[in-house]
Amino acid sequence: MSVFSPVYVAGVLEPSYRNWKRLYAADSVRVHKAHLVMLRECGIVADETARSIARGMEAMARGFTPPASIPAGSEDLYFVYEKELERIAGAENAAWLHTARSRNDMDSTIFRLALKRELRTFAGTLLSCCETLESRARAGADELTVLFTHGQPANVSTIAHYLSAFLLELLEDAEVLLGALSSVDRCTLGACAITGTGFAVDRERTARLLGFRSIVPNNYQAISTSHWLVRPASALRLVLSDLTRLAADLLHKASCEVGLIEFPDELVQSSSIMPQKRNPVILEHIRIQAGLAAGTCASLEELFRNVPYQDVNEAADAPVSDFIDSIAKARSSVRLAAETVAKFSSNGRRVREMALSFGVTTTELADALVRDCGVGFRCAHGVCSAFARSGYDKAVLRAAFRTAAGRELPFSDATIEANLEPGHFVAVRKTAGGPAPEGMATVWTAAGEAMARVGAALAEQDEREARSAKELEAAWTGLASGR
Amino acid sequence: MSVFSPVYVAGVLEPSYRNWKRLYAADSVRVHKAHLVMLRECGIVADETARSIARGMEAMARGFTPPASIPAGSEDLYFVYEKELERIAGAENAAWLHTARSRNDMDSTIFRLALKRELRTFAGTLLSCCETLESRARAGADELTVLFTHGQPANVSTIAHYLSAFLLELLEDAEVLLGALSSVDRCTLGACAITGTGFAVDRERTARLLGFRSIVPNNYQAISTSHWLVRPASALRLVLSDLTRLAADLLHKASCEVGLIEFPDELVQSSSIMPQKRNPVILEHIRIQAGLAAGTCASLEELFRNVPYQDVNEAADAPVSDFIDSIAKARSSVRLAAETVAKFSSNGRRVREMALSFGVTTTELADALVRDCGVGFRCAHGVCSAFARSGYDKAVLRAAFRTAAGRELPFSDATIEANLEPGHFVAVRKTAGGPAPEGMATVWTAAGEAMARVGAALAEQDEREARSAKELEAAWTGLASGR
Amino acid sequence: MSVFSPVYVAGVLEPSYRNWKRLYAADSVRVHKAHLVMLRECGIVADETARSIARGMEAMARGFTPPASIPAGSEDLYFVYEKELERIAGAENAAWLHTARSRNDMDSTIFRLALKRELRTFAGTLLSCCETLESRARAGADELTVLFTHGQPANVSTIAHYLSAFLLELLEDAEVLLGALSSVDRCTLGACAITGTGFAVDRERTARLLGFRSIVPNNYQAISTSHWLVRPASALRLVLSDLTRLAADLLHKASCEVGLIEFPDELVQSSSIMPQKRNPVILEHIRIQAGLAAGTCASLEELFRNVPYQDVNEAADAPVSDFIDSIAKARSSVRLAAETVAKFSSNGRRVREMALSFGVTTTELADALVRDCGVGFRCAHGVCSAFARSGYDKAVLRAAFRTAAGRELPFSDATIEANLEPGHFVAVRKTAGGPAPEGMATVWTAAGEAMARVGAALAEQDEREARSAKELEAAWTGLASGR
Amino acid sequence: MSVFSPVYVAGVLEPSYRNWKRLYAADSVRVHKAHLVMLRECGIVADETARSIARGMEAMARGFTPPASIPAGSEDLYFVYEKELERIAGAENAAWLHTARSRNDMDSTIFRLALKRELRTFAGTLLSCCETLESRARAGADELTVLFTHGQPANVSTIAHYLSAFLLELLEDAEVLLGALSSVDRCTLGACAITGTGFAVDRERTARLLGFRSIVPNNYQAISTSHWLVRPASALRLVLSDLTRLAADLLHKASCEVGLIEFPDELVQSSSIMPQKRNPVILEHIRIQAGLAAGTCASLEELFRNVPYQDVNEAADAPVSDFIDSIAKARSSVRLAAETVAKFSSNGRRVREMALSFGVTTTELADALVRDCGVGFRCAHGVCSAFARSGYDKAVLRAAFRTAAGRELPFSDATIEANLEPGHFVAVRKTAGGPAPEGMATVWTAAGEAMARVGAALAEQDEREARSAKELEAAWTGLASGR
Repeated sequence: MSVFSPVYVAGVLEPSYRNWKRLYAADSVRVHKAHLVMLRECGIVADETARSIARGMEAMARGFTPPASIPAGSEDLYFVYEKELERIAGAENAAWLHTARSRNDMDSTIFRLALKRELRTFAGTLLSCCETLESRARAGADELTVLFTHGQPANVSTIAHYLSAFLLELLEDAEVLLGALSSVDRCTLGACAITGTGFAVDRERTARLLGFRSIVPNNYQAISTSHWLVRPASALRLVLSDLTRLAADLLHKASCEVGLIEFPDELVQSSSIMPQKRNPVILEHIRIQAGLAAGTCASLEELFRNVPYQDVNEAADAPVSDFIDSIAKARSSVRLAAETVAKFSSNGRRVREMALSFGVTTTELADALVRDCGVGFRCAHGVCSAFARSGYDKAVLRAAFRTAAGRELPFSDATIEANLEPGHFVAVRKTAGGPAPEGMATVWTAAGEAMARVGAALAEQDEREARSAKELEAAWTGLASGR
Repeated sequence: MSVFSPVYVAGVLEPSYRNWKRLYAADSVRVHKAHLVMLRECGIVADETARSIARGMEAMARGFTPPASIPAGSEDLYFVYEKELERIAGAENAAWLHTARSRNDMDSTIFRLALKRELRTFAGTLLSCCETLESRARAGADELTVLFTHGQPANVSTIAHYLSAFLLELLEDAEVLLGALSSVDRCTLGACAITGTGFAVDRERTARLLGFRSIVPNNYQAISTSHWLVRPASALRLVLSDLTRLAADLLHKASCEVGLIEFPDELVQSSSIMPQKRNPVILEHIRIQAGLAAGTCASLEELFRNVPYQDVNEAADAPVSDFIDSIAKARSSVRLAAETVAKFSSNGRRVREMALSFGVTTTELADALVRDCGVGFRCAHGVCSAFARSGYDKAVLRAAFRTAAGRELPFSDATIEANLEPGHFVAVRKTAGGPAPEGMATVWTAAGEAMARVGAALAEQDEREARSAKELEAAWTGLASGR
Repeated sequence: MSVFSPVYVAGVLEPSYRNWKRLYAADSVRVHKAHLVMLRECGIVADETARSIARGMEAMARGFTPPASIPAGSEDLYFVYEKELERIAGAENAAWLHTARSRNDMDSTIFRLALKRELRTFAGTLLSCCETLESRARAGADELTVLFTHGQPANVSTIAHYLSAFLLELLEDAEVLLGALSSVDRCTLGACAITGTGFAVDRERTARLLGFRSIVPNNYQAISTSHWLVRPASALRLVLSDLTRLAADLLHKASCEVGLIEFPDELVQSSSIMPQKRNPVILEHIRIQAGLAAGTCASLEELFRNVPYQDVNEAADAPVSDFIDSIAKARSSVRLAAETVAKFSSNGRRVREMALSFGVTTTELADALVRDCGVGFRCAHGVCSAFARSGYDKAVLRAAFRTAAGRELPFSDATIEANLEPGHFVAVRKTAGGPAPEGMATVWTAAGEAMARVGAALAEQDEREARSAKELEAAWTGLASGR
Repeated sequence: MSVFSPVYVAGVLEPSYRNWKRLYAADSVRVHKAHLVMLRECGIVADETARSIARGMEAMARGFTPPASIPAGSEDLYFVYEKELERIAGAENAAWLHTARSRNDMDSTIFRLALKRELRTFAGTLLSCCETLESRARAGADELTVLFTHGQPANVSTIAHYLSAFLLELLEDAEVLLGALSSVDRCTLGACAITGTGFAVDRERTARLLGFRSIVPNNYQAISTSHWLVRPASALRLVLSDLTRLAADLLHKASCEVGLIEFPDELVQSSSIMPQKRNPVILEHIRIQAGLAAGTCASLEELFRNVPYQDVNEAADAPVSDFIDSIAKARSSVRLAAETVAKFSSNGRRVREMALSFGVTTTELADALVRDCGVGFRCAHGVCSAFARSGYDKAVLRAAFRTAAGRELPFSDATIEANLEPGHFVAVRKTAGGPAPEGMATVWTAAGEAMARVGAALAEQDEREARSAKELEAAWTGLASGR
């Protein structure tokens, strides 16, 4: 038994031991069970030996708690577990549990199980946020709002149009995340150190018992790859980046001066010094939590840079545990976003004010001149620009049209006003992807299909996990009871 | 005509104008054509007007070169183009070309066309690198090598096993890239500023004429989304990160002291001061070019952080052009990697030396003790560790076995040696994913399927592009000739 | 003469050669001159030999242009140069120029000279932007404005107070940059490959001839360090990050709805479809150019991660050249920021409107209650919150005061209004760092001192450079003429 | 009392409350004390009121523990504290404590105190690592080693030369960190929300009582700046990046095949499956911990991107607390590096082997030819390259010299060998920065001076802190006792 340097113990072994107890203990046992079941089925471990190990493990499940700190001379939680198993089941028997595997493939399988679960939970939260977005969007089919480009008011639209745009982003993010999850959802057990083993193990069987979708095809790749960490980290960053953009846009819409959306008191903080203040800082917290979680994700993406394509500790407990903690932070950001979307209200009166004072519907008047007065687009645009610069003086409009087109504007004042009406602006935007109901049909179809795909993928995974848990339990019971 | 500040012209308009001329001029014309064809088909622009515009554009294709620098008062290349078109086709006619569109959707469509082409080229280079990897891997089915974990020699394997592991990584990268490409391959034309238009345009038709797979479903999303930039940037980073890992591993294997692989003179640089030096710095350049290109990709991923979910210039020419330039750098890195893989040779003699002096095959001897001598894994591991510490002294091995097992080791010296033989180590690793031919079957199947999927996806895209180019050409000819 | 692989030439040697011709040719000659002068002064190269080399170099200065593409078999521009020098001065003579140096120290010295110059230019632009900020700030001593916290209006202040805050940030950035420059401003010549040389060179002398502040003390460090790249990259990122924050804040203040600041037409772009639009997109371009330049800087910072602490090509032409190009982009962002600051105007009428409608001065009324009416801060804050919630109804204020304090509010309506007056809010904020002239005294002192320090540091560097250029020229003339 | 949304409480208020209790509670009290002392000294709060508050705070110090979870309706720990103070000291009295300050300046001052302390501790660990490096370097003045360029053996040098190079890097890092600390070491109290206050506070006095070096000059800057977070984050990244480079280089030197350095068992981990393995994974953990801590630092640097230059929550508890946790991780990485440096041993025999088999000293033979045989550098280099290619066959050397110089090589075999001797290679490298004792003088001077500067700066800070703690204690006692 080697005795490690106290600095090494304090700086490496002890933090790792704590992570293992906190995050990976249960999955470790699950992996031991599946491995032992497979070893016995393949005839590598004798029935009697397997039974002794199984009974020892059952005894440990009932009565063993690993010490608070790592015992001197132990490298990790597994050595502590194995030592206790040796005590209970006999050293000769216990040793067989580690046949035809290495800590490399064992650890990696355990980390993948843990990470998969966290990502599944995150995906569920994300889907639930999408459902909130969808129902708020559908509720806002007739709520007019102003949308901006480059920070300036641009067009009138509806809350449905606006929120469903972001919904489609999040759904794409969810699909990217599911794609990344497929990199995690592969079993590495049986890859051993890096080349596999001379024992005739059945990698597919272990994978199935643990609920994995498939195995990593090449053993060296199984141990060396970074993809199961980097791909989900990168997918998470995409969601988080989108959340910061939504937060920035809502913050602008919620500012005193814009006033298009409002928050109830339960989401607003005051100032300790400024009596007039109502700060919807929940939006800042979405942005900050997203930013911090994205930072950890980015650090995982960078972590493997210039690291030899070998088995390295970058794919081990320190980074994986940090990643798991950042997923929790990312979930919190998503939940805050969902809460924000669920609880804001829009201010229709303000839309009307802005539409008229900032000329947000002038585009439609210009288009009407093209369609109904037979002038080209540039001419109509110029006439309407003059109208805008005048502060929306109809006499200026008429004069500008006269100059440009050489005749009188054939619109009555009422027609001009009708063409500037916010509701009209929306109603005519019927082509695919526009805010009118006809245009929104395309949107709802796309969103519905994407939600269905995401939901189905999560359900498939849940069912597979449940099935494999049952299968493992049955096999384990058989093994332990000697059937 | 407003006159812009000279600082603004020098710092914004002029660089943008140069980017447009260099990268987007041809796609602009393609987009004008498709838009005009659609406008006429939808009855929005009269036949006669459409024909005048088409003839003007044809005249410009033959004879118009935009000035070297942006003319005073012009915002961008499009205004220059439109002005010339007005001169040729008449202002009244020319203006109709910009009906029912905005620079927002027009630019975004053009950028997507340009980016799609660059990414397609990159994907081709990546696939070709995969082919090089595959053929070098297949050629190395019997070339033994040593593989490392944590920088120390670990197992014997084959060049085929090693390179095919990395091949599978790159193929996964290619599939991630194709997934990201689907975000680019969506048409935004018709989304106009952000809400679409009251004109009855046919967004699907324009998309088809331009060879896009689909349209972005929601107009606001079409103009506001960052996904078409961020997703491919992130996919590229994954490839590039993998390349740095391969380079780091090969650099170690190619060092004087390890000497497992060697490079021909055509890939080696010398020192101006150290006569003995042979530096395979191509590996450093893979890493550096990958690192710099990854840097630009990372900057795109960060660029949208906290930027309001609106139309913003982050999705415009400055970032897109930097991205396009970095894709070229990324391609160079991939090509250097392919060259490296194609040209290195492996040193079999050195494998044998290392296997014997560093005990790289001792794992197999331990497994043989388990399988053939009826001892448990921990016992066998302990006996072999003693053997390793002794510098591979068989007497120590026998003594350690005797102490541990209470009897003589039933292996002759020849059996011990056979179990330590590098070729034997490989031959017994037959389970899925191992280096023996039986294990490699799983690998070749997975790689073959992935290569086929990637190849098919690229072929589908190429065919679609060709088809749409033909369709647009036909429609254009019809329109210009008045049929 | 080895012939390099065409892939290697195209991917590595040719781009490097182009970078050298574009960016480093002049500094190379300067380094050759200083090295030769030192070699002769130290008696390492004979006078006659030195003179022959010098005359050859002079002839090349007059008549030699390196070929457009790298000649076959050449590694880099230096070999091309040396070959021509051999032709002119004789191979025996020419060879002495490379005595007691390596490409390692030679290249690194050249890169440092080039980078130093670019950073000096950038620092000049930054200082000039600070001067613009200062003069605009001083001009705005009496221009009231509203300042925000968390995106909501918070306090009234002055343009001077606001801009001078940012001025102090940029001045701190400039000082950080100058600190980083000191890492660049160290000579590595004489470190040779990594351990120096057995020839009795005088490293201090060469450093002085080239205008460096000092030498890198340890030869291995001289060649291996990343600090001369990473420190300035990191300093630049700080400036750039600050610029994005200023842009975001100004964008908010310049939005239609807020309207606190306005831009002249020369800095505003219109929309091709929305006639009402006036987009101050210069602010977006500040942010984007800063973001892209920051991306390259970040990539330099990450580039050295996990790269062995050795001489590596990360500190060579590809990264250095990208860095130099990004400094140009960063300068453009700074210049756009200066232009923005110089040209915006503030809208005083809007300040008054906002102060009254959003209660921005209520804090001062609360403080007045504490000071003049003998109530505690929490009580005053509560009374004013009720006043704010009522929409600034004085009756509510009086009632709230009565309830809380148990007596009548001893303020007349005029006193209440005086306490809410924007100008009054500013005038009473006299403590250090506040917007009243008394408070600003601290600010102007700090800014003035920092500007003086930055200016003096740049002047010292310029003078040192000029002095050394003269000293080198004199020594060179002496050497070439054989004196 | 508003009741916050449960989602908001769980996602924002509760985590913040936990951070405050864990990290900021003690500094909060310190800030309350200094503020109250100043308020009384400035005559803003009456003596009697101040005494009541002070006694209440003393009572709370003895007996108040904030609840485990945030009480319903409370925004943060401060409100909880204030409420209890109101209960004890009376609401009328307690309220005066928050006169002339805001949570903005109060929080920011508290965060700066906490961060300053963590950075001070980190700087101490860094300095102690430098001391370890220095003493190991000095001990290795005569230990020869081989140094590498581009991963290939390049020159012979000494452990002293090698380690002192890295020592100088770390010392520069430490000075950069101290520079960054000066951004943290500035007091913001009195800046209130953003413009200061109309009460005649004394900002300098509070700063002095809290041990700050100075105040932030402009109140708006005080609350809006990111520098106190971004600058130290960036400085930390520099250290951490350097550590990854040292780790990568040592990992190479410690590999089986190179074998230049060795680790004792207490720093080596074995494999659970490969009996021969001895992995110095401590080097990987240096790299990984550095990488993860650097990731959090990078996330702080990016966090402020595009965030309006205003008071924002990016400079509040969530990011600051993550930063503090990452500083602990960074310290662990530094401690592991120090342990590594303290405990490795170098293998002199291996230096000799490598020097001879890889021609590492051939450069010196070439230089000897130049110095002693009157040939130019290129000729000598060519002759020695032929010698290297021949596998160091002296006959080839002589023949090559004969061909190139037209005469016999005037060196005996013994002279050739003496020139190739590793010790000789070192002994002649006497110029500044070289490994010979004469060259190292420059190095030791530079390192000694830098260590003295860093040590003095830390001592100055410690003394200032101690002095201010005493001054505050004295003032507080006076206030509480009514003197």
